Amino acid sequence: MTEFHSVTAETGLPEGDAIPGNSLSDVQAACAAADEAFDSYRATDDESRAAFLEKIAEEILALGDELIVTAMRESGLPRARLEGERGRTVGQLRLFANVVRLGQWKSIRIDPAQPDRQPLPRPDLRLRMIPLGPVAVFGASNFPLAFSTAGGDTASALAAGCPVIVKAHTAHLRTGLLIASAITKAVEACGLPKGVFAHLIGPGNELGSALVQDPRIAAVGFTGSRSGGIALMKLAQARPVPIPVYAEMSSINPVVIMPEALKARGEALGAAFIGSLTMGAGQFCTNPGLLLAIEGDGIDAFATAATAALETAEAQTMLTTGICSAYNKGTDALAGNAAVTTLARGKEGNGTTKGQAALFQTTAAAFLADEALGAEVFGASSLIIRCKDEAELRAVLNGLEGQLTATIHMDEGDTALAQRLLPLLERKVGRILANGWPTGVEVSHTMVHGGPFPATSDSRTTSVGSLAIDRFLRPVSYQNIAPAILPADLRDGGGKAPRMIDGVLHTN
Amino acid sequence: MTEFHSVTAETGLPEGDAIPGNSLSDVQAACAAADEAFDSYRATDDESRAAFLEKIAEEILALGDELIVTAMRESGLPRARLEGERGRTVGQLRLFANVVRLGQWKSIRIDPAQPDRQPLPRPDLRLRMIPLGPVAVFGASNFPLAFSTAGGDTASALAAGCPVIVKAHTAHLRTGLLIASAITKAVEACGLPKGVFAHLIGPGNELGSALVQDPRIAAVGFTGSRSGGIALMKLAQARPVPIPVYAEMSSINPVVIMPEALKARGEALGAAFIGSLTMGAGQFCTNPGLLLAIEGDGIDAFATAATAALETAEAQTMLTTGICSAYNKGTDALAGNAAVTTLARGKEGNGTTKGQAALFQTTAAAFLADEALGAEVFGASSLIIRCKDEAELRAVLNGLEGQLTATIHMDEGDTALAQRLLPLLERKVGRILANGWPTGVEVSHTMVHGGPFPATSDSRTTSVGSLAIDRFLRPVSYQNIAPAILPADLRDGGGKAPRMIDGVLHTN
Repeated sequence: MTEFHSVTAETGLPEGDAIPGNSLSDVQAACAAADEAFDSYRATDDESRAAFLEKIAEEILALGDELIVTAMRESGLPRARLEGERGRTVGQLRLFANVVRLGQWKSIRIDPAQPDRQPLPRPDLRLRMIPLGPVAVFGASNFPLAFSTAGGDTASALAAGCPVIVKAHTAHLRTGLLIASAITKAVEACGLPKGVFAHLIGPGNELGSALVQDPRIAAVGFTGSRSGGIALMKLAQARPVPIPVYAEMSSINPVVIMPEALKARGEALGAAFIGSLTMGAGQFCTNPGLLLAIEGDGIDAFATAATAALETAEAQTMLTTGICSAYNKGTDALAGNAAVTTLARGKEGNGTTKGQAALFQTTAAAFLADEALGAEVFGASSLIIRCKDEAELRAVLNGLEGQLTATIHMDEGDTALAQRLLPLLERKVGRILANGWPTGVEVSHTMVHGGPFPATSDSRTTSVGSLAIDRFLRPVSYQNIAPAILPADLRDGGGKAPRMIDGVLHTN
Repeated sequence: MTEFHSVTAETGLPEGDAIPGNSLSDVQAACAAADEAFDSYRATDDESRAAFLEKIAEEILALGDELIVTAMRESGLPRARLEGERGRTVGQLRLFANVVRLGQWKSIRIDPAQPDRQPLPRPDLRLRMIPLGPVAVFGASNFPLAFSTAGGDTASALAAGCPVIVKAHTAHLRTGLLIASAITKAVEACGLPKGVFAHLIGPGNELGSALVQDPRIAAVGFTGSRSGGIALMKLAQARPVPIPVYAEMSSINPVVIMPEALKARGEALGAAFIGSLTMGAGQFCTNPGLLLAIEGDGIDAFATAATAALETAEAQTMLTTGICSAYNKGTDALAGNAAVTTLARGKEGNGTTKGQAALFQTTAAAFLADEALGAEVFGASSLIIRCKDEAELRAVLNGLEGQLTATIHMDEGDTALAQRLLPLLERKVGRILANGWPTGVEVSHTMVHGGPFPATSDSRTTSVGSLAIDRFLRPVSYQNIAPAILPADLRDGGGKAPRMIDGVLHTN
């Protein structure tokens, strides 16, 4: 059996006892248990399922400071950030508990029989959503709590009624094991079948591939690199029965500073931009990697302020040595590109995992001429693109791949331009925000953390927020099914979920 | 340029003048026009878009009897069926007009700002669905009106705000051209950009592949064979930007006659079964191709009645010579299988396109031992499977691929058995019906004409009924966007669509 070690982010070195990995027969056993647990888990009533999600939250909090200290060591992220992330993780589980109770996700629809309809009677028809089946979850390194073992994918899949099998992220094995123990305790405390949750440790390619290819797996949630996500998409499509893959992969999150905003507060925006860029060593999916502005008043003040702010940015420990070296490779490529000016580098750090912030500048013409300039550099690196005019700005935005977010900074005098840009931005991204920075992702009913490929593998969904539950559901129609065997929610007067009756939506 | 001919189903021979085909540059031009039309078409208000759908319905009716006569000649289907199908097609367009007006499809959600929230303020966040982009539609031969040029895929995509490019079905070219002319008239009458709709004629593989591979196409709707659907799925996944394919492909629609129902009315069920099986020469996606019963009282009466009914079934003209020869190959394979008994054949017909009904019988053990017995035979052929006991019945159902429908015939005494089977059936199909036959597909808010692969490529959707609009939508989130540029529906008090505010659903 392969062994693994927890790695300390700051040193890149292994720490503590070896952690036994799982074998491919463990994958099969986990899939068999998940498949067996599926029918009884999906049959749980709303309150029991909601209570289970809340119990997971409670057990995560009960892990106490050991969780925070372990995650700090493994991820290099600071205490405040991880405490906040724990709050977000727990809040997310509680949000989904409420989503389960509210019941809109069931999409209950009833068309009562019309026995006298001409030329043919209408049968009694009722529709509800049911869960897809066991879900494989691949967590992200950059959110060891909120996007990993008990992260959004796990929470939304469990909320939908799907058992979950997590492929542990090797960048935070001990953190993952702690969280897995909390989930397992909740499964036991709620009297659910053991197969509702499993946590597997192994080399990503081999174990992860076996998991995605197992016929009992019905869907995949993934957050990570583009190459990783695309590999999973291909595996899932090549199965005898293809399954959906929800991969959240890569985004450079363009930020447009519009002329009037630039004129009015270029300097302040420059400093605020660097604040968003360097937060968490820039290791956010929504990090502002591209900044666009039209030449004009305020653009120099903006660049000067951004440069000054970036120069004082401390080097920060990155999540893994691999991520740090990929970051260095990315910034080296930009620095070495003849069409790119290095405006500033942050402070240098010691050791092999410190990320040194970077700010580059180029022209729209140069950006349009070189595809490589649009590649994601995961970390605190951003590229300012100076555009001659609106046409160049549009050309750059139009040429971008799908993104998670687009940001506009605008004043009232920019309204007409913003209005012209909005349809273009809608076609490119999952979230459009004004006068803020993309790095804060609210966990809410209204969040879309998604977007056209390659931001994600499936623009029809989100991986953050309550709408994420829809990813793991499919509709089933029941025709003339006697009340005695009809699912309780579908009976007349059954349950308190909203229901569409004869095309009219009723909230109870 | 390749030329095509309308083919008369009864003779399999070409009729009338040559019809010019489209070239690959026509495909590009249609995609360019659709892409250009997209933003203005998706910006139409609900009432205009609904009126457009209703105008298409009106123009289809204005085609008068020429449409029916043409479709009769090309499909071999009888007048009453095609008049009914025209009603269904028109009704479907009107249903989607109402769906557009009701606005639930927009999934409007609003979380107002909470500037004083601790530790961080909550931004103003609003969510709506927007259309994916231009959609390529591949119609079916078996519903030349309701599943073709202006069929469900076209109606739901147009309702969602997506321009549509139809790849004409070569089995009913003149019918398709008539319908296309009706849609084009409606586009003009409503003052919409020309690119909202296009109709292309060409060899399926070459023209269809070019269409699916065009970067401007955002989704594909398909109804047809398994091989055709899978080919489109592969093409769509291999694109630089993969896109969703909604392929409705194959289903053998198991029907289970439960013991008490069998005992009480085996004979009547046998005759009714053959009525459903032979309707429209059995050329329905939901044709009952598999009938399961447990050995016991009534099973012989059932089989005897079914046999007698089938023997008197007239041969019927099939849609194309290709479909007829595939049908004959399928029935020959069953007839030649040593484990299968031929219970009856319908009357023989004259000519090359007459389908002769067929009823076969085998045991559960034989069915489980030979995968070939589960293959779809498109046409009026069905296989009765006699099961020793409930365990065998479950084993057969459990071994089936994904299906569009499952049917149970039951009496009160069968309730416990039905209850035990329901979870199994839910995992296999998109629609479960009791004491009826699967061949009637209601176009309603509650219909699921879908199901796990290979019944469809995407079990999360339906291709019939109002829920079909969701296939062509994706969510976009708007954060702190000023009312002046916010889409009208998302403004406070904007529009009359239902909206979720702070997690609470409001119907207006």
